[in-house]
Order: sequence, then C-alpha cells, then structure tokens
Amino acid sequence: MKLLTIDTSTSTCSVALTLDRRVAGEYLLQLDRTLTNRLLSCIDTLFRDAGMEVGDVDGFAVALGPGSFTGVRVGVATVKGLAMAAGKPVVGFSSLAMLAGNIPWSSFPVCPLFDARKNEVYAGIYRCSSLPEQLAADCVLPPAEFLKTVPGPAVFVGEGAEKYRNLITTAMGADALFAPWHVNQPRASAGALLAAELFAKGKIIPLAELNPTYIRPSEAELAKLQARP
Amino acid sequence: MKLLTIDTSTSTCSVALTLDRRVAGEYLLQLDRTLTNRLLSCIDTLFRDAGMEVGDVDGFAVALGPGSFTGVRVGVATVKGLAMAAGKPVVGFSSLAMLAGNIPWSSFPVCPLFDARKNEVYAGIYRCSSLPEQLAADCVLPPAEFLKTVPGPAVFVGEGAEKYRNLITTAMGADALFAPWHVNQPRASAGALLAAELFAKGKIIPLAELNPTYIRPSEAELAKLQARP
Repeated sequence: MKLLTIDTSTSTCSVALTLDRRVAGEYLLQLDRTLTNRLLSCIDTLFRDAGMEVGDVDGFAVALGPGSFTGVRVGVATVKGLAMAAGKPVVGFSSLAMLAGNIPWSSFPVCPLFDARKNEVYAGIYRCSSLPEQLAADCVLPPAEFLKTVPGPAVFVGEGAEKYRNLITTAMGADALFAPWHVNQPRASAGALLAAELFAKGKIIPLAELNPTYIRPSEAELAKLQARP
Repeated sequence: MKLLTIDTSTSTCSVALTLDRRVAGEYLLQLDRTLTNRLLSCIDTLFRDAGMEVGDVDGFAVALGPGSFTGVRVGVATVKGLAMAAGKPVVGFSSLAMLAGNIPWSSFPVCPLFDARKNEVYAGIYRCSSLPEQLAADCVLPPAEFLKTVPGPAVFVGEGAEKYRNLITTAMGADALFAPWHVNQPRASAGALLAAELFAKGKIIPLAELNPTYIRPSEAELAKLQARP
C-alpha cells in the first residue's frame, strides 16, 4: 500500500512516502521555527518529486507522541485534514517506538529518550529485532529515575540521550551504550514500518478519536486544574 | 563542521546536510530515471529549506561504490564540481559501509548487499557498534559464494538481501536475519557519520584522485581488454 507518514514529535520534522516494503521518498528537516508552514511544504515537495499526489495514497500515519506538545498537535491536525480531504484511513503510533526503530537487531534493549524539558525525559524501553516491541510503558520521568528502571546494558538513542549523556554514563558505567549520532533523530520511515503493521492488523483510528499521547498534562491543563476551586 | 554528503550508489539517491553531530536535513528519493537532474534538484531543495548555501559548507563527502556504475560516477562528478567551485575539501567512503551503518549496535555481523546484476551481489561484512568496522573486504560474488564466507549468524541488509532472501534463508537457515524494510536503502546521513571520522583523521582526497570503487571492471573496460591483440 502507498502510505504517507508524518513525524513532528521533536524539532526534527520528517515525512515519508512508502510503497509496500520500500521507501519511495523521505524528507527530514531540523526546524527551529514555523513548523506548520514548513511541514506542508515538505509534504508538497516529496509528493511532487516522487511523481505522486495526495489522492494517490491508500492511508496516512502519524506519530502521536510523546514529544513536543505543539509539534505533535500540528502533526495530528495535518494528518486529520489530509485524511478527511482524501477520504483515506489513518493509523497512529508511539513517537518513542518510532525512534527505537532506528536501532534494529540491537544486542541490547533500546531506550529512546526525548528531552521533555523541566529536567525530565520522555522515555521507553524496547526490544528491537525487526520490529520494535515495547518492554515497558512509555513514561515521563527525571532521567535518574528512569535509569533505575533499566534492567542492564542498553542502547540510549535520541536528543534526550545526547543531553543527559554524562548523567547516563555516570549512573550506568559500561552498561550505557549510545547510538551513533546519525540516528538520534526520529524518522518517519521508521514510523511507516510500525504503520504498515497497524494497517495489516486493521488498527485504523476514527478521525474523531485520533488524539496526541502527551503522557503528562499540558501547561494549559495544569493551569486549569489549579484554577479549580 | 558543516558537511554535504551524497549517495547515488543504487536507484535510491540521498543527500544529507549535517552540522557537527546532528542531521540538519536529509532527502532520500527512489529514482528510476534522470538521476543527474534530480540529484542537483534534491541538493538545491535541501540547501534552500535548511536556509544554507553551497558556500556555507566546510566539506563534501560522497559514496564511492561499489554500486551502480553510472550512479556512482554521477555522484562523484557532482561532488567534484561542487568542491572545486566552493574550494572545499572532499572525503569518500564505501557505499557498503554506509549501508551497514543503518544497523548500529547489531547483535551480529552486518552484511550489506547490493544487487550487482549478472547474478552477483556487491557484499561486505561489518561489525557495527557505533561506527561500522570492516571485517572482510567489500567484494562482488554470486550470492551463494559470498554466503560461504559469512562465519555465522548475520543481519543481511539492502536491496540485494531482499532480492536473494530465499536463497540466503535456504543456505543459512536460522542464522539468516534480515533488516526491517525501512532501512534497506542506503542513507547519506550514515555516510556523513563515516565522513566526519575521515575529516577528523585528515583523510582528505585530492580531487584528481577521487575515483569510484567499482570492484569489478565496467562493460566498457571489459570490451577494451577483449579487443586487445
């Protein structure tokens, strides 16, 4: 099937067009601003260069988070719009599972880490052979707390792993392995791998139920809770 | 350093802009025609969207093969032109080492395979922790012959691994592991990982000595040899 997959969970945005078991095109950009405009422009460029149109795809897929609140919301909203206009189904997947997919056939469990600000990380533990399998629920924790849940040697990947590299090395010593830098950013094509499985299993999400997975409440939600009498 | 890395070893073309230990942008396209035009257009798109110009980069890197003769020649010629115009240094790396870089921290040796036509594969054996390390020289062989040189369980990756999957499974049984499909195409960003090491070690190649590594003679060379008295 022809699939458009979008990831905007971090400051790196990526879009991938996949055709059955092959990447027809993938565009990844490190963005520091104006995600909304840039995302549509990336999608447009990719479709044009691949000689395809939005109406040609059989389905859409999107990274649901955790990650940047605004980023994930823009990604989900964009996919909702595209899917509604094209009348095609949508699946969604964990942004951390997608990042773990950058380390297939790893010797050790893979721990994808995003920087969650406030001295915390979004983190997960996955076993990666061909497809990433979740070993523990995605969470948001101070990095030192998360490391207590990692059972032994592990490969740390992502911008969170870069940011807290010293802390991880101090805590875990030789058990701390780090992904090479070229795979530290999530890739929509790794999301497409997960998405193809979800479509095969019929795990389509109705557009009204397609929502970000923030794990922790947003600032707006916290303010609302605190304002309650 | 700012680096532009180009790969055109197979029918998948990719270009990556990297900034120290981070991918600023990567564009990958499956091409079936007109590589020369498309490659420059991809480079142009990437520079524009990353807010950079050719003159901003500190160096260039290119996949030298083995792979498609025409593809590799176009990649090398393009990088020569860019480097000469910009007055910046160039490094080159094995296209198979780059493909092996898609499977970091693998439990087993990684065998990158390109289809070399004529019932042969371009193949290598690498140990991949953070950086791919060559365990045996890149070669061109019928797949069954190559498999005799693989010492035990291995992860096969690339379009050659897809094409000869049944043959590999029959020959190696449970010792044959296959990369998930989303990493079967080479990526310029994995080349950038190798290129950054080469620049750090001062392994710059003078433009006059920057040549493709075909491993086997081209059809034109064979015809010339056969035509000799």
